Amino acid sequence: MTADRIDLDAHQLADLRVIVDGRVSTNESVLDQHGHDESAFPPSRPSAVVMVNSTEEVSRVLAYCNTEQIPVVPFGAGTSLEGHVVPIFGGVSLDLTNMNRILEIRPDDLLVRVQAGVTRMALNEKLSTYGIFFSVDPGADATLGGMAATGAAGTTTVRYGSMRENVMALTAVLADGTVIRTGRETRKLSAGYDLTRLLVGSEGTLAVITELSLRLFGIPEKMGAAVVRFPTLHDGVAAASAVVRSGVPIARCEFLDALSIRNINAHDHLSLSESPTLFFEFHGSPESVMEDGRVVQEILSEFHGTEFEWANDEGARRKLWQARHNSHFAAAAAHPGKKGVSTDMAVPPSKLAAAVAMVDATLSKQPFPYTILGHVADGNFHSQLMADISKPEELVAIRKLVHEMTLKIIEMGGTCTGEHGIGAGKIDLLVAETGGEAVQVMRGIKASMDPNGILNPGKIFRN
Amino acid sequence: MTADRIDLDAHQLADLRVIVDGRVSTNESVLDQHGHDESAFPPSRPSAVVMVNSTEEVSRVLAYCNTEQIPVVPFGAGTSLEGHVVPIFGGVSLDLTNMNRILEIRPDDLLVRVQAGVTRMALNEKLSTYGIFFSVDPGADATLGGMAATGAAGTTTVRYGSMRENVMALTAVLADGTVIRTGRETRKLSAGYDLTRLLVGSEGTLAVITELSLRLFGIPEKMGAAVVRFPTLHDGVAAASAVVRSGVPIARCEFLDALSIRNINAHDHLSLSESPTLFFEFHGSPESVMEDGRVVQEILSEFHGTEFEWANDEGARRKLWQARHNSHFAAAAAHPGKKGVSTDMAVPPSKLAAAVAMVDATLSKQPFPYTILGHVADGNFHSQLMADISKPEELVAIRKLVHEMTLKIIEMGGTCTGEHGIGAGKIDLLVAETGGEAVQVMRGIKASMDPNGILNPGKIFRN
Repeated sequence: MTADRIDLDAHQLADLRVIVDGRVSTNESVLDQHGHDESAFPPSRPSAVVMVNSTEEVSRVLAYCNTEQIPVVPFGAGTSLEGHVVPIFGGVSLDLTNMNRILEIRPDDLLVRVQAGVTRMALNEKLSTYGIFFSVDPGADATLGGMAATGAAGTTTVRYGSMRENVMALTAVLADGTVIRTGRETRKLSAGYDLTRLLVGSEGTLAVITELSLRLFGIPEKMGAAVVRFPTLHDGVAAASAVVRSGVPIARCEFLDALSIRNINAHDHLSLSESPTLFFEFHGSPESVMEDGRVVQEILSEFHGTEFEWANDEGARRKLWQARHNSHFAAAAAHPGKKGVSTDMAVPPSKLAAAVAMVDATLSKQPFPYTILGHVADGNFHSQLMADISKPEELVAIRKLVHEMTLKIIEMGGTCTGEHGIGAGKIDLLVAETGGEAVQVMRGIKASMDPNGILNPGKIFRN
Repeated sequence: MTADRIDLDAHQLADLRVIVDGRVSTNESVLDQHGHDESAFPPSRPSAVVMVNSTEEVSRVLAYCNTEQIPVVPFGAGTSLEGHVVPIFGGVSLDLTNMNRILEIRPDDLLVRVQAGVTRMALNEKLSTYGIFFSVDPGADATLGGMAATGAAGTTTVRYGSMRENVMALTAVLADGTVIRTGRETRKLSAGYDLTRLLVGSEGTLAVITELSLRLFGIPEKMGAAVVRFPTLHDGVAAASAVVRSGVPIARCEFLDALSIRNINAHDHLSLSESPTLFFEFHGSPESVMEDGRVVQEILSEFHGTEFEWANDEGARRKLWQARHNSHFAAAAAHPGKKGVSTDMAVPPSKLAAAVAMVDATLSKQPFPYTILGHVADGNFHSQLMADISKPEELVAIRKLVHEMTLKIIEMGGTCTGEHGIGAGKIDLLVAETGGEAVQVMRGIKASMDPNGILNPGKIFRN
């Protein structure tokens, strides 16, 4: 893949139409819709959008595109924050949203088998009648295939793990159309190389995931959420670290700075005090939830945490987390015409307070509006800077600033991405973080699985 | 690598002696010691044993062996049950036991950095003064490098996970001597392909692991163990599944059949009733341990579980688990002159009772003494058949029987290995389980990382 951009000719479009029974679109608005995600990356249209209905169709489309050397970018809900679904080199946007069937629910095995286009909210709605749920929640209503491909995580990862821990087995299609099955629907597995974990987080560059077996959990008897305010950002972050060290089994622990609170108040019609805030959630029996809350409140008071306030009822609890999940959009709504550039740093727990302080000190000296929030119990936090997308120089300035801050995080033993992935924007940071030798190994694996480089070119590695 | 066996010439031995400061042995007893593990696989001597003291030395030895096309088999404690350390094709046994330094203990990050030759018991002895522990316990006092390479798990996996969940970062040396660092010491990570999880369980075929960053846990305030007897094997297994479904956070739940109990009674001077038995352990506060025990006892009574008996004190608790860990050796001691062939099947929870029943029915009809035991809360169980190693035909008959039983397990949605790995004996079963296409992907990765095939040839894949 060396060309700048691949556009399909009439013959290729006709061939693809035969393979997928006509479901090929070159309609302008469809191309636009598949040319961007939720990130601030410059959009780039695919040459065509191909809608697939089955693993078999994915296999035939890929075999064809591999022969014709056409780039293929898998597309789900388009909620990536790192440009994953942007077809930088044109070619085909492979839309899997029609593959939205829940194939098998096995409550006794705490397991579900789904097609890649099922979204997490649709899944959980279906599962709730069985008293079980799928735990990973990145905020957006992403597809499960997309969540696996990007190695998604979210607010409940501290308790239930990320996609890495919750994908048990996959059906995936290689660049040449070969269908493989990885993993096994067993709790333990040691049979050969862990291809499941290799595909999780491979960002569509190694194979197209078409089916997933996912681990589930029983819905806890009681879920209690609470909100606590702090006088300073440092107090809030340090308090969260202390709670983690205490070993109290928190289900969620999210930090939001004062501006994030102001934004979600406006966006979600809440009236939270505009201070640095922690949102907590505890899962268990009614007694254990109250007891966990009590212990946590005691710890927080040492860090000047005040107004520890339980969500009154299930409605209030849901509203709180919906607001947290909307924070990305709330920031955009507060700055009309601007788009957010989100960082995704993570550090070892002992470095968290210093890392957040460094970021806050750096951002407070620059001109762009920003918020800081995140999954602080995991040492993972985001800052979001608002750029005017009509002024490309703003994006350039922000990216430079973020790059420099992230290098400092890497020096502290941290990572450039805890959950969003490398995508198109952190290719150099991946090298800085892992060293060129490890990236060479990744490139070798890529070459062995996708020798023509048709799968999501320009992501993870520069082409 | 096509030769049947590679023996080093005098020139090669001299070159290696220069690289490792003389630490190359061709002493008969040293070669013997490095020619077998705890499995019943036929021993095969290396041509030389090379003792390494550092990552740098591993790098130089591998670079040399790669150029000379000499097979290299990493060696730790030699406790594999699947022939992993047997140098089938001769060459070098690379002994890492000198690399036994604990490099850094970081209690605040619940993290430790060790060299690959540190054993898990030595590590836990050192960690105990900090109130923290490393959770994975395969029974044997294996090295942490070996445990990572085989993707080890054990009795506590149901609560704390296997090596897959507890290795955060690795230093490893590729076949050509390149040193790579994988992963990051952060709780969350999404930076490129998950090379850490690829190396964990790669059985020494992709790289030699030299350093590990491991996740730790706080030592619980209280650990309480209990023993319960059942009238039948089926009752015991079904009871364990019911406990798992209940969601009680058990730390350990091990099944042992009547003969296993008889063997450990003799080997460890215990006087447990010789019935199908579950060993439990609960971790938490003194109150939660008692409460968890109470709930479990209630469930067990529905399955005719009797004599629920707490270990009296910490000494009794330790003695119980030591006996469980010795069960492999206890079986051998009960059958002088024989060696155990261990199966390592795992199935989805809902299939466990049927799987154990199938295995028991099959084994009861054949002539070799056998036991059944295992990590039933994870759906993972072992049967051990005793073979007279002076009669190769016994081993052949047992392997044939095990192969056929395992194919049935695979048909039920299970795996040929939950924790022991593929090694030299399950190469065909890996193909049966994953399909040839997935194995081809593994072979492609192997070829990209070890093009000359010098790393542990004959394991996972046939050469």
